[in-house]
Amino acid sequence: MTHKIAVLPGDGIGPEITEQAARVLGALGLDLAMETAPVGGAAYDAHGHPLPAATLDLAKNSSAILFGAVGDWKYDSLPRQFRPEQAILGLRKALGLFANLRPAILYPQLANASSLKPEVVSGLDILIVRELTGDIYFGQPRGVREVEEGSFKGEKQGFDTMHYAESEVRRIGHVAFQAAQKRSKRLCSVDKANVLETSQFWRDIMVDVAREYPDVELSHMYVDNAAMQLVRAPKEFDVIVTGNLFGDILSDEAAMLTGSIGMLPSASLNASNQGLYEPSHGSAPDIAGKNIANPLATILSAAMLLRYSLNEAAQADRIERAVQAVLEQGLRTADIHEAGTEKVSTSQMGDAVLKALK
Amino acid sequence: MTHKIAVLPGDGIGPEITEQAARVLGALGLDLAMETAPVGGAAYDAHGHPLPAATLDLAKNSSAILFGAVGDWKYDSLPRQFRPEQAILGLRKALGLFANLRPAILYPQLANASSLKPEVVSGLDILIVRELTGDIYFGQPRGVREVEEGSFKGEKQGFDTMHYAESEVRRIGHVAFQAAQKRSKRLCSVDKANVLETSQFWRDIMVDVAREYPDVELSHMYVDNAAMQLVRAPKEFDVIVTGNLFGDILSDEAAMLTGSIGMLPSASLNASNQGLYEPSHGSAPDIAGKNIANPLATILSAAMLLRYSLNEAAQADRIERAVQAVLEQGLRTADIHEAGTEKVSTSQMGDAVLKALK
Ligand SMILES: CC(C)[C@H](C(=O)O)[C@@H](O)C(=O)O
Ligand SMILES: CC(C)[C@H](C(=O)O)[C@@H](O)C(=O)O
Repeated sequence: MTHKIAVLPGDGIGPEITEQAARVLGALGLDLAMETAPVGGAAYDAHGHPLPAATLDLAKNSSAILFGAVGDWKYDSLPRQFRPEQAILGLRKALGLFANLRPAILYPQLANASSLKPEVVSGLDILIVRELTGDIYFGQPRGVREVEEGSFKGEKQGFDTMHYAESEVRRIGHVAFQAAQKRSKRLCSVDKANVLETSQFWRDIMVDVAREYPDVELSHMYVDNAAMQLVRAPKEFDVIVTGNLFGDILSDEAAMLTGSIGMLPSASLNASNQGLYEPSHGSAPDIAGKNIANPLATILSAAMLLRYSLNEAAQADRIERAVQAVLEQGLRTADIHEAGTEKVSTSQMGDAVLKALK
Repeated sequence: MTHKIAVLPGDGIGPEITEQAARVLGALGLDLAMETAPVGGAAYDAHGHPLPAATLDLAKNSSAILFGAVGDWKYDSLPRQFRPEQAILGLRKALGLFANLRPAILYPQLANASSLKPEVVSGLDILIVRELTGDIYFGQPRGVREVEEGSFKGEKQGFDTMHYAESEVRRIGHVAFQAAQKRSKRLCSVDKANVLETSQFWRDIMVDVAREYPDVELSHMYVDNAAMQLVRAPKEFDVIVTGNLFGDILSDEAAMLTGSIGMLPSASLNASNQGLYEPSHGSAPDIAGKNIANPLATILSAAMLLRYSLNEAAQADRIERAVQAVLEQGLRTADIHEAGTEKVSTSQMGDAVLKALK
């Protein structure tokens, strides 16, 4: 069976890094049909919308999406619905990609890259499971209105609605508990239940879901404390599950603990394991087109694509081993380069991974 | 004129640390009337409520509140309105304490305490200005309801409302711009304007307030990026202004960068400079009553009390210099103790600060 894969390069370094990841996917000997479409600022420039109908259709009709990155300063002044990041939000919503898996792994070869002390982070291996289609990201009503009562009566007010329905919490809970079962069997649910009704509701349901996973130890932590503990002793975490907004913040904080965000992939899955795979880093317009960006996060995202959407775990392992191998060989793009290692370009890194696949 | 000060020791280590701070305040030769009242779990035990009417009255009728800490595992199963932290939320709301000032300072003598590399954090000196009475903390409506339409129709849903009115953003903006004027003249406003209406509204008003402070350079950063940049290069920040929820998360993250949260004070002010002053750390019930907690964050909170609510900047300086002096002398409580320094108890640390005041 041919697997259809939508390749959405996007803006900035997006095209260069997806090119390398697509080469790697193409070299595995699988029956893949890769089709490319514009997204983000590039799509706005070409078609007047960051997520054109044709791109959305392609994404919907594919088994998986290999996504580069979107965004550039030059789109900052556009009305919000035309800005590049609306493409990501639109894809998440349209495809129901509710489960975001964000590993924060520090490769031993890159321990120096972190701003944290090596003993605090070396060997770090956290998985953040972020709910991705609910919470305050899409909650209605939202907007600007006039305040109707109280001390600010008559003034304008910006407002948003945070909410989670029972089955929304349950389904991300199941994803997280099952991930924890495959790892250390410890799951930490992060919320703000001492202040938010949404969080108390989330917590109660997580406790209920936990009854189906007696082998997993569930703990709860407030989001402010989690932001602290990630800095103090990140290795005490294994799997973290949290809502869309807190997950946005904590997954980026956790990624930066490694100091090598150019290495970190992500997966966003729906209920039928259709998924969007993208590096955790952004579009880096300042270095776009220079063939110096690190393609490894996107290549590792392609590995996640094989594992989760194509059920090709052995091929995913093969890519991950190849990435390990090039690090072992001392090859480094500029972002992770240090004395004693060999600085290579984006395409040279791609070449090296391809060679290591053999 | 006699200044009335409410001393609210609270739970856990609260009583021991406020005792030392009150001793320091009492030794300055100022005309202060300090009165103590129960708060938090201690107040719930004694009076059935974490913020008894008498405590609230005392707080309202004082120039300032010296607050210890509240909370203990044993209250975790109480209904939310009786839990210790409701006392803090209640005081903030009742007194209109909208401006939370949270310095994150790394004392050179304690650079090793951080989990970050010394070169990344030594000399760190950030001020986070957090809005404290608005946002999703108090927004109505909130609760649990039935979903009325869409894919989760008929299910239960937890929900909260985030909002900011124009003058709420303006007044915290003025506090932050004025703080920046006294420091490096750089202010970073943190929001999530690419997703939230509340944030876009916040950002637009900050831009407007900025016109009154042409000497201050205003920048904007998304909260997820701020959580990353605090880890990567915290010294690039000077003053940060942000909403209640993001401020909760980022101020704790920033505090932990120093590795010595036992040193960090905070102030929460209203429009007439009445204020609540408390250490940034919690009640640490596990070490309560052992005379080993670090009283310096509370003593430094007393210094902020003098500076902001009593307009006694010289006396505040005096305390801050005394704290510097005891660090110079090599005195350390257990939380910041390292080889080559002298471990002292809570009360010995208080004694040393008193002596250094002279
Ligand atoms: C671009 C933005 C809307 C997005 C988010 O907030 O989810 C991004 O920060 C992410 O984490 O993928
Ligand atoms: C105890 C809790 C309600 C409080 C908050 O979230 O504001 C605390 O975390 C703080 O930052 O003072």
